[in-house]
Order: sequence, then C-alpha cells, then structure tokens
Amino acid sequence: MKKTPIIFPLFGYDDLVNKMNESLGVEVGKINLHQFPDEETVVTIHSNVSKRDVIFVASLDKPNTKILPLLFSADTARKLGASKIILISPYLAYMRQDKQFEPGQGITSDYFAKLISIYFDGLITVDPHLHRWHSLNDIYAIPTKILHETGGIAHWIKQNVINPILIGPDVESMQWVSEIAKKSEAPFLILTKTRKGDRSVEISIPNIERYQQSTPVLIDDIISTGVTMIETVRHLRSLNRKPVVCIAVHAVFANHAYQDLLQAGAGKIVTCNTIIHPSNTIDVTNLISDSIKEMIKVS
Amino acid sequence: MKKTPIIFPLFGYDDLVNKMNESLGVEVGKINLHQFPDEETVVTIHSNVSKRDVIFVASLDKPNTKILPLLFSADTARKLGASKIILISPYLAYMRQDKQFEPGQGITSDYFAKLISIYFDGLITVDPHLHRWHSLNDIYAIPTKILHETGGIAHWIKQNVINPILIGPDVESMQWVSEIAKKSEAPFLILTKTRKGDRSVEISIPNIERYQQSTPVLIDDIISTGVTMIETVRHLRSLNRKPVVCIAVHAVFANHAYQDLLQAGAGKIVTCNTIIHPSNTIDVTNLISDSIKEMIKVS
Repeated sequence: MKKTPIIFPLFGYDDLVNKMNESLGVEVGKINLHQFPDEETVVTIHSNVSKRDVIFVASLDKPNTKILPLLFSADTARKLGASKIILISPYLAYMRQDKQFEPGQGITSDYFAKLISIYFDGLITVDPHLHRWHSLNDIYAIPTKILHETGGIAHWIKQNVINPILIGPDVESMQWVSEIAKKSEAPFLILTKTRKGDRSVEISIPNIERYQQSTPVLIDDIISTGVTMIETVRHLRSLNRKPVVCIAVHAVFANHAYQDLLQAGAGKIVTCNTIIHPSNTIDVTNLISDSIKEMIKVS
Repeated sequence: MKKTPIIFPLFGYDDLVNKMNESLGVEVGKINLHQFPDEETVVTIHSNVSKRDVIFVASLDKPNTKILPLLFSADTARKLGASKIILISPYLAYMRQDKQFEPGQGITSDYFAKLISIYFDGLITVDPHLHRWHSLNDIYAIPTKILHETGGIAHWIKQNVINPILIGPDVESMQWVSEIAKKSEAPFLILTKTRKGDRSVEISIPNIERYQQSTPVLIDDIISTGVTMIETVRHLRSLNRKPVVCIAVHAVFANHAYQDLLQAGAGKIVTCNTIIHPSNTIDVTNLISDSIKEMIKVS
C-alpha cells in the first residue's frame, strides 16, 4: 500500500496548514530552517519522508530571501528518500516580468519557472498573475494546477456588500472580473488607465455615473505598490462616492501600500490569505485542501 | 578569431574589478540589478555578450539574498548568447555545512554546489573553507580553480610585524598556517579548543610561553562570529601579551563580531578584500586577474 503524503508548512504558514489539515487529516511534518549568524541556512527534517510524497506549502512573496531555504528543503527531502515533491505556493512569485521591456533585460518569470521546475515534481498555486503568458505550462516544465478563488471572493461580496458595482483594473482581467461578477450577481465596470511614469497613473471609470447608489468594489489579483487602486479610490472619493471596498487575492503590499490605501480613503480592504497579512478575510485553505484531496485520490 | 571575454562585477565589486582590470585590459560590462518594490529583481545587461565568454565577479557572503539575482544574471547572459559563463567568487558561501550534524539535516554545501554547477561553466574562488571536503570537485560538477592568498598574507606579516609568532585555529588548518609561516619566515603554534555550547569556547595555546618577546598573530580563513578569535585575544591579553594582530582571508564578521574583536583587545585586524569590509588590507585583485589571464591564454 502506498504511504500517505506528508505536508510541511514553510515561512510562517503553520497555522494555515494546521487549519487546512482539520478536514484533510494527513500528517503535518516537522521541519526546521535555521539561519546561522553568517546568514546561511540549514534545513532539518524531523519527520520520516522516505518513499512518501512530500508537499511543501510556501507562499513566495519576498522571494529572493526565501528561495535557497525552499530549494534546500526540497534537496533535503529528496536526500532523505522522498518520492514526489510538490510545491503548493498560494502566491507564486516572479509572474510579472513576462517580456523583455528593454533590450538586454532578462525574463525572470521564465527563469524562475525553470528553477522551480528543477527542484519540484509539481506545482499548485492560487490565481497566478497570467498576463502575457497564457498558461503556467508556457514556462513551467512540471505539471501545474491553478486554483481560482473567484468563488470565495464572490461569496464575500454577496454576504457583505449591499448593491455592489465591481470595478476591474484592466481589460486583461476582464474575464476574471466578469466571473466574480456573475457569481456575486453584481454588475461590473473596467477601468481605463494611462501610466504617467513609474508610480503615477491617471484613471477613469467609464459609465460609473450609471451606478450612483451602488457601493464601488475595486478588485484586482495583486495589490503591490497599490498605485492604481489608490488612484481609483481617490477618484471615486472625488466623485463623492460611498466608502470604497478594495479586494485582492494577494496581499503583497510593497512598502507602505496598505497604509497609503487606507489613507486614500478605502473603506475596507479585503484579501485572501495566500500571503499572510492583517487584511486577510477570505480563507483559501479549503480550496487548497480540496486540491490535495484530489491529488491523493489520483496518485 | 575568438572574441575576448567580458567581466561583470556584481554586488558592489565594481571598484575591485576596475582596479583588477588595469593590468588585465578586458572589457568591463555594464549590468543593472533592479529590485522592484515587491522585492523581485530584474537583470539588464547593457553590453554585448553574444558568443563571448562571460565572467561574473560576485562575493557570496550573505548568500540567500544574492542567489536569485546571481542565477538570473547567468540566465540573462545565456539568453543573450553568451558562450561560457564563469563565476569568480572571491568568497564562496555554504562551505561549512559539510556533514549531517544531526539526523534529518541537509548538507547545504553539497546542495549549493549542485545549484551553482547548473548555472555556471566554471568557478574560481579564493581559499574556500575545505574541512571535511578535500576538494571542490567532491561537490562541484564543473571545473573549479582555487586561488591561495597565503603569499599576500605572509608578505604583509613580513612587512608589518616584528618578531611574529603565528597562531593557527585548529589542526585542520595546520598545513595552511605552516605555509604562511614558511613564507613569512616565522614560527607557528596551533590552538587547542574545547567548545562549550553554541557561542562559547575554551582555548589554550600549547608552548606559547616559549615566545615571550614575540607578537602574537592569529590567523584563520574566516572570521564569522569570531568566537574563537575573541576568546584567544582575551586569553593572550590575560597573559599580558602585546597587542595581538588578527588576520583572516574572509571578513564575514557576523553581527557585531568586528566590534567585539576590537573590544576584546585586538591590536590590529587585517583581512583580504574577498569580502568588502573596513578591515581589508591585503589585496587579492592581482591573484584574481592572474587567474583570468591564465584562463584567456588557455581558452
């Protein structure tokens, strides 16, 4: 009989993995990442992984400091006899540098995918930022599975916002936004924006005047610097709209983006717990544990 | 005719590469590592690398934050048509975790070597910490070359210390210490130490009483936490010895090790510039540029 898989949470994902495991009931392994004073890391796996499928759950925001501990964890499990090694990355890094924006530039989304594909036998992630790449298979050489949190977001909107008008960030996200709109039975609009330099953007919301009595709900996959969302909140406030609800899957919040968004007048900021952050409201653990159940059934 | 190689300094090694290049006269390339607000890095190579050998000079102290920018630099050069890609790492990271010190532990020196071997076609480094591994070839799958700075250290001692007695840290370093002793025409002794927990060590210096009029010169390959060296300085001070000279190749100096060593009573701290640090006194640029000259001649 095939041994059951074992899950290791990395980088502070312990609570979520334990919660997810209430319904899953597989073993949560013990792993220790110790950083020496010279800033080198040693990995110790305290559970038996021999001939077992190993699942690492690691969100990859701030990826540069996490990558060696992550790869060494996979190496250590492999050395200790693990069978397949799967990475569940609720937030997948390096998806945005998806073309050469100037000559001589590296396409890091491609290089990052290549590196992950060397160390892992499979990848599961939640709503990755697919813009110019149409599928993770364009860049990843291993089996991948994308989970969508549109259901959870739509459910939250239905439960918590009276008379919402959804506002998506760009035409590329239209399909994603329209799915959430459909599931939450709400209308939606799409922003038009003109970038003015690195951190400034001019926005408008065509047809917003038709929804005078609605609560604007801005939705995006990632809030990083939050430039667009902050500008949109300001714009809506200038039109004397009700407090705006801001929703994103991934709470990247670079630098002071979260505080800036609150100061700009966001009435509520709601994110999924793909990256651990005080704004986490929508829980992705069921989504992830379902994908693990399916994986166990198939293998 | 084969095109000449091109050198790219990374992580603040620009001044040293420019200095080295005064005698070398090859092209120093322009590369930009830009970190986005979400802490992802993009690499841009502004020089022509097509069909040329590319040399990256990157010291790998604090390796976890440097590894992705380093690997992405190699990927970008490769994508732009580089022929061979060589890494010159004056300080090579992850050499010290060279066995499983407890069950379940990863051997990161091996894993790091494997990773570097995927991305580079050759490696040149200065005095790596070879303890349980006898050769870099035990773990690296690419051609490697080790440069020794014993000559520079011996020369500095001869020029700057009257009547020195060299003191090496352990029996494993005996050969290295004895070579410096021979070249500097000075006697040497070897410490005996007993570790007391993580950061404490009890030391003694057999036969030190024979060298009452000599200036103690402590030498080691790396000063990291500096525990042993600090304890040795204290021990020598308690014997009313003259101010002690401390010499190391690699100025890792974790946390406050440098200040601690000065406070313990080190009269002078001298390092090589394999890692850029205020204590750098012995210049390794000639050593490195000679190795590049040789590489050009051979290829």
